[in-house]
Amino acid sequence: MNSIFLKACRGEATERTPVWFMRQAGRYMAEYRAIRAQKTMLQVINSPELSAEVTLQPINTFGFDAAIIFSDILPPLQGMGLDLEFVKGKGPVIYNPLRENKQIDLLATPPAEESMQGTLDAIGLVSAELTPRNIPLIGFCGAPFTLAAYAVEGSGSKNYAHVKSLMYSEPAAWDRLMNKLVTVMTDYLLKQAQAGASALQIFDSWAGAALGKLEYAEYVDPYNRALIAAVKRRTDVPIIYFGLGTTLYMDVVRENGADVYGVDWKLPLSEAWESLGDNKAIQGNLDPIALLAPWRELKHRIDIVLDQADGRNGHIFNLGHGILPQTPIENVQRTVDYIRERTSN
Amino acid sequence: MNSIFLKACRGEATERTPVWFMRQAGRYMAEYRAIRAQKTMLQVINSPELSAEVTLQPINTFGFDAAIIFSDILPPLQGMGLDLEFVKGKGPVIYNPLRENKQIDLLATPPAEESMQGTLDAIGLVSAELTPRNIPLIGFCGAPFTLAAYAVEGSGSKNYAHVKSLMYSEPAAWDRLMNKLVTVMTDYLLKQAQAGASALQIFDSWAGAALGKLEYAEYVDPYNRALIAAVKRRTDVPIIYFGLGTTLYMDVVRENGADVYGVDWKLPLSEAWESLGDNKAIQGNLDPIALLAPWRELKHRIDIVLDQADGRNGHIFNLGHGILPQTPIENVQRTVDYIRERTSN
Repeated sequence: MNSIFLKACRGEATERTPVWFMRQAGRYMAEYRAIRAQKTMLQVINSPELSAEVTLQPINTFGFDAAIIFSDILPPLQGMGLDLEFVKGKGPVIYNPLRENKQIDLLATPPAEESMQGTLDAIGLVSAELTPRNIPLIGFCGAPFTLAAYAVEGSGSKNYAHVKSLMYSEPAAWDRLMNKLVTVMTDYLLKQAQAGASALQIFDSWAGAALGKLEYAEYVDPYNRALIAAVKRRTDVPIIYFGLGTTLYMDVVRENGADVYGVDWKLPLSEAWESLGDNKAIQGNLDPIALLAPWRELKHRIDIVLDQADGRNGHIFNLGHGILPQTPIENVQRTVDYIRERTSN
Repeated sequence: MNSIFLKACRGEATERTPVWFMRQAGRYMAEYRAIRAQKTMLQVINSPELSAEVTLQPINTFGFDAAIIFSDILPPLQGMGLDLEFVKGKGPVIYNPLRENKQIDLLATPPAEESMQGTLDAIGLVSAELTPRNIPLIGFCGAPFTLAAYAVEGSGSKNYAHVKSLMYSEPAAWDRLMNKLVTVMTDYLLKQAQAGASALQIFDSWAGAALGKLEYAEYVDPYNRALIAAVKRRTDVPIIYFGLGTTLYMDVVRENGADVYGVDWKLPLSEAWESLGDNKAIQGNLDPIALLAPWRELKHRIDIVLDQADGRNGHIFNLGHGILPQTPIENVQRTVDYIRERTSN
């Protein structure tokens, strides 16, 4: 496959700027809501047919240039021994959060098939459908820190006190936990590539909110590097690292070995490229809130992103964070169409 | 008064590094919890005697080099017409959030005495107590964006969709709202200085979480500049700007006219000074979570902050965010003592 998305991941010239949106398979689409009205999050994730259907909905409706498999970063923790539920109106909860070193020692490191067979099968179904159409499918996982934070906090957190206390106070236990996560995620990403994913995104959703530059460099970055290096030893699919809120220390992040860096909506892309170096590909970074604005304002904000990218090779248009459930679908369509039109050679 | 805190605010040499902690009057102290067990947040804020007592507790217990008046950034919104309550376990709620332009037009801009007399009187009581002891008292307010965000969202927000939609979609209404907030906060800060505050801190708690660099520069920074300039025309007390999460665009923030910049715990102070210029004073930036760690690790993290400050004039030691309720008080005392000892000439 040689789609414009994959070319952009490799920093090659493309005939126009590829576009996809984080959480593009999601609640802003009526077709998605119809399925979720009948099924829980984990039921959809565990069903290859339903995940595949949901993954394809935005591709068929809006014509995005890449699909991302419908799943979540947390279910792989179940195979390690964590008791996960997505609670309506509250989000994911882990009922046995890691609060004792002994719990860390007891965590299993099973192969991905054990808890993620549904997602691997869904990848097979979607890639069988999309490969003939030359549309790539992105697999993904959570970054070790973000997964550790969830496993230790047990739910969303305001200040990450438990996980940071562990990190600061028990560096040896921290290292064991992070190494186990690297092991499990390496296997999971490789299995996704084998199953048909032609790019892999690592979501570090919490590192930037939780950690300063020095802490990120000391306690997080080595494990991101280890994960990326381990995957790269066994596959050549491009790896995208999206560290929400980490642009403050891009000089550390840029060394982790990824091919593409997701940039959140806080930093203008021109400055992101200055920090990253022109030879890196960048994915981003329209503010998802802009999709709620009237077209005139929305277009203005799309133009800012495209002006900053300035036609560089290696720009993948995306949002700077996941699309919001209240996004009007006509704004999504108009945005995708406008980006295609404006960037076509 | 010529305390080491005020000297540091002006960038002058001091015999040692002054230290105070954001939220130093707060739930980590048993004396504070005893009062709050009997009284609501607003009752304490509205009582000059209780606010004064709570303000003085950490000064008398730990020997901080500055007091900050016990209050909150939101009560001034009440005088403008917003219906505020601090709901136990949930935080502040505004029952009539701004969702229509007409509501913005109806907001009042009364003088500070109307809703904040309790705080102004408390400042009088505390400064009468502390001036003879040569300990300065800091007054404060919320920055216009952070207050607007609360007024529009009505409570804590994950993505600030309402306030950013207003900002993007209705720039004229946004300008009217922000100007009203500048008017009210200018008056409130000046009245606090008149009542006895010898420094003034502006808390921009949400700007960095909500806004990218371009949006901050366009929709927020002009109003911070207007507020700071208006206050500076009428008083020479130093102004501290603390924009949580705004260090990513320090090159914009540093031009707003403040004398001191609060730096959150994400950016090493040496890099903060690089962005700000050596002639600015900096307040920060120990991670509050470090205060939960064993002394060996806590000391290591204090040393990092002091090493980065490297004895520069204009360093005020503080946390990078408010102290956490679960902080052991012995760690607070040991931290204050250690900073005094290590930085004394």
